[in-house]
Parts: sequence; C-alpha cells; structure tokens
Amino acid sequence: MNVDGKKYRTIWLAQDGDSVEIIDQTKFPYAFEIIKPHTMEDAAHAILVMQVRGAPLIVATAAYGVALAMRADSSDEALHNACSALLETRPPAVNLHWALDRARKSLIQVAPALRAVAAFTLASEICDEDIGINMAIGMHGMELIAAISETKRKGEPFNILTHCNAGWLATVDWGTATAPVYMSHDGGIPVHVWVDETRPRNQGAFLTAWELGHHGVPHTVIVDNAGGHLMQHGQVDMVITGTDRTTASGDVCNKIGT
Amino acid sequence: MNVDGKKYRTIWLAQDGDSVEIIDQTKFPYAFEIIKPHTMEDAAHAILVMQVRGAPLIVATAAYGVALAMRADSSDEALHNACSALLETRPPAVNLHWALDRARKSLIQVAPALRAVAAFTLASEICDEDIGINMAIGMHGMELIAAISETKRKGEPFNILTHCNAGWLATVDWGTATAPVYMSHDGGIPVHVWVDETRPRNQGAFLTAWELGHHGVPHTVIVDNAGGHLMQHGQVDMVITGTDRTTASGDVCNKIGT
Repeated sequence: MNVDGKKYRTIWLAQDGDSVEIIDQTKFPYAFEIIKPHTMEDAAHAILVMQVRGAPLIVATAAYGVALAMRADSSDEALHNACSALLETRPPAVNLHWALDRARKSLIQVAPALRAVAAFTLASEICDEDIGINMAIGMHGMELIAAISETKRKGEPFNILTHCNAGWLATVDWGTATAPVYMSHDGGIPVHVWVDETRPRNQGAFLTAWELGHHGVPHTVIVDNAGGHLMQHGQVDMVITGTDRTTASGDVCNKIGT
Repeated sequence: MNVDGKKYRTIWLAQDGDSVEIIDQTKFPYAFEIIKPHTMEDAAHAILVMQVRGAPLIVATAAYGVALAMRADSSDEALHNACSALLETRPPAVNLHWALDRARKSLIQVAPALRAVAAFTLASEICDEDIGINMAIGMHGMELIAAISETKRKGEPFNILTHCNAGWLATVDWGTATAPVYMSHDGGIPVHVWVDETRPRNQGAFLTAWELGHHGVPHTVIVDNAGGHLMQHGQVDMVITGTDRTTASGDVCNKIGT
C-alpha cells in the first residue's frame, strides 16, 4: 500500500536482483526503515526478532531466505539445512511449515546449478499468491461494505472496527482484514476505522494506525474496552479482524480480546 | 491498609494537630511520597492535579480543605468562599457537592471562634464515616467469599477479578471493591486477585496492583481483554468492581470495560 504517496510491499527483490529488502517493523511507529537481509541467516534473524511478523509475511521472508541460501550454496545439503534453520525460527507456525515443505520438495527436483534462480522465482510466486488471496478477500469485503453503505445517508462514514494488525504489514500487501478497507477507501466509500490499541503489545496503535494513516484512511485509535460502548451507540457498522484458525462451523480463534 | 507492614490511611491529621498529610498519588507506582497541604488552596490543588483521586478521598480532602480555610480565617465569608473554591475543583462530583453543603450548613451555626476546631472534627468524622461504610462492604463481601470458598478444595485460591481502582487509595481506608478482598485476606482466606490493567490510564496496573502488593495480597496484572478468557476457563470465582451509579434495578454504571 502507500506510505505517504509511494507504493510499497513489505518485502521485495532489491534492485540488484539477488538480494531482498524488508521494512524493519521493530521500528514502528517511530521510524520507517528499510533493511536488506543478505543471507539466509539474516532472513532467519529478521523472523526471530520480529523485524517481519504476521504469518503471510513470515512465509514470504522464509521463502526468500531459502533463495538467499541457494545463492550461496545450492547443494542438497544446503537446501535441507536452510529449510530446517528457517523452520526453527517459529516451529509452531503451520504456514511456515507448509511453505518450507513446498520449497524443499520443489527445489530438490531442480538441478543445483539452477536452484538459486528457481528459489527466487518460487519466493516471488509465494508473494504474488499472498497478494492474490488478499485482493480476493478485499473484493468480497468491499461488496459487503458497498451494499450496507447504500443504506446510509450520503457522505456518512462507514465505521469498521478492527483488532490487532491483520493489515498489509502482516502480509506482502493489502492485508487480510484490511484489504476490504483499503479497496473501499480507494473506491471512494467513506470508510472510517476504529483501531483497537490491542493490549498488551499495541499492534493496533503501533501498526494498524500507522499503515492506515500513511495510506490516508481516516481512523481513530480506541482502547480495547471501548468497542462495546461504540456498538451500543450504533457507531460500528462492521467488525473485521484476522483469524488464526476458523472452524467448520464458522467460529474464529484469534488474539485475546477479538 | 499496610504499606510494607506499616498502617496508613490516604489522608490524616499531621502530628502538629492542625495540618493534614496525604499520599501524593501522582507518583504511583514509582514512588511513595507524603505531602502536606498547608492551606485550603493546597487542598484544592491536590484535588485538581489528582494527587488525591476517588470520590470518597476527594470528599475527605475537601472537608480538610474547609478546616484549613477556617484555621486561617473563620468568618462567614471565608467559609462560603472555601466551599465554593473547593466545589470548583470538580463541579460534577455529587459526593463533593453533598459534603461541602453539609460542611457549610453545619459550620455556619458554629461561632467563628470555634469554627476551625469544629471543621477539623467534621473532617475527621467524614473520614471515619467513609471507613465505616467500607468496612461494612468488606464484611458483607467477606461472607459471600467465605461461603463460596467453602465449596473449594482446601488451599485452592479464591480468584477475584477487579477493574480500575476502587481500592483503599480511592477512599480513606479499605476501599470499596477491595474491602472484601483485604478482609478475606487478613482473615486467612487464600484470595488471589486478577487486576485488569485498566486502559487508558492504567489505574489497575499502577494503583490496584501497588496497594495489593504492598499489603501482601497475591495478585496478577492482566490485560483488560483477558477477563473473558479466564472466566471461560473457570479461573474467576467472583468479580468485584466499583460502581459510579447503581440503578434501582441493580444495573451498574462504571468505567469503560467494566
């Protein structure tokens, strides 16, 4: 999304074509700094210290980590070691397990001489897939928002409450919960977002407010406890949050407070 | 209650017998400092800048403020001016209005030469009344806690959740919501308190945790959002909070999140 008018993803191939750049998310909301992981170890470190966070972005970073490893040493052993080392950064992360498994199975079939190029291509594919999924969420969500928005007085804001950060900073672009917000805003629907500060780590106040503000989406940070009061007073038209797991019956597991 | 083994109230007559001492609550939780309002203006300032806070303690401070004013000038005009100035510190406070009205009506009937003594006596009475009310709350609450506690396994903690600070720091002593906690603890019931941090001003984390800790009551600070989860898992035996207003039907108005 936009940061003060300039388009960004959270991770991208650097201009040199074989290194990677990421936004250092540990500096939010105080600074916007771009750093360059040069090696697989740098990528693993970025995940470990939460310079990148959010399941989709961790997956993308790990995929580029494999690519950086293959550029240094494209042997079967190096591939195996890279996948193991990257998985170690977050052993319980299901998406990460899945992505590294996919990388290993796919790259082991490629001749070592071609593995670095194949790995960079795979990482780029994984990023584009994430963006595709988020845009699909955005389109579906925007339809719902547009339909409800029709029933409101012209110019009246459409109020969306969100918790934590399931925003573009947690993904490669668009975000999951925020994709409908950004699409609706860009499409001219007057959305306004109630941003739960999200205790104890303040991802709402530090990340969601930052990204909405820099893209230009009207928003207000509130204490987590204020959501019920706003609903009671008709000030919430829709709630959109991330879901860590969704059951077959539609129940959602997510961060405390959701 | 106790602060590291020594008994304190939040406001008391100084050793010299005609000045007042209070705990400077703006310094919590970082420091325990006692300050001495010498004049009515000092007392008004203490209320204004929240060196004292909580409706009962504000009332007690205002009552001593009237006494300090009468010691300086015990004329009818000075009495009237002191009550007006003290009311100005918190015009919407119902208890404050009531207490200053009571002070004015009672002291105007006393000969000016005796007004300072009468005013100090009245302030002391108001403090003791607050303590009496809180002890009655404590006795009632302790009975409920003891009854439920009987159904638990021996030694198992009795978990009480509270929000914000309706503790002894908000009153003259014992607190309202905390009175049953302190009495049960002192009486040997193994209470443990879940202390909501209470965003946005952190009165739970800064005040309630401070007072429970210094009195020696086991407690754990939690983010406000965690209460529902703890209840779901059977970890909350009772919730006790303050109430700003209680309706005839038993509904309670209190701080956001309660």
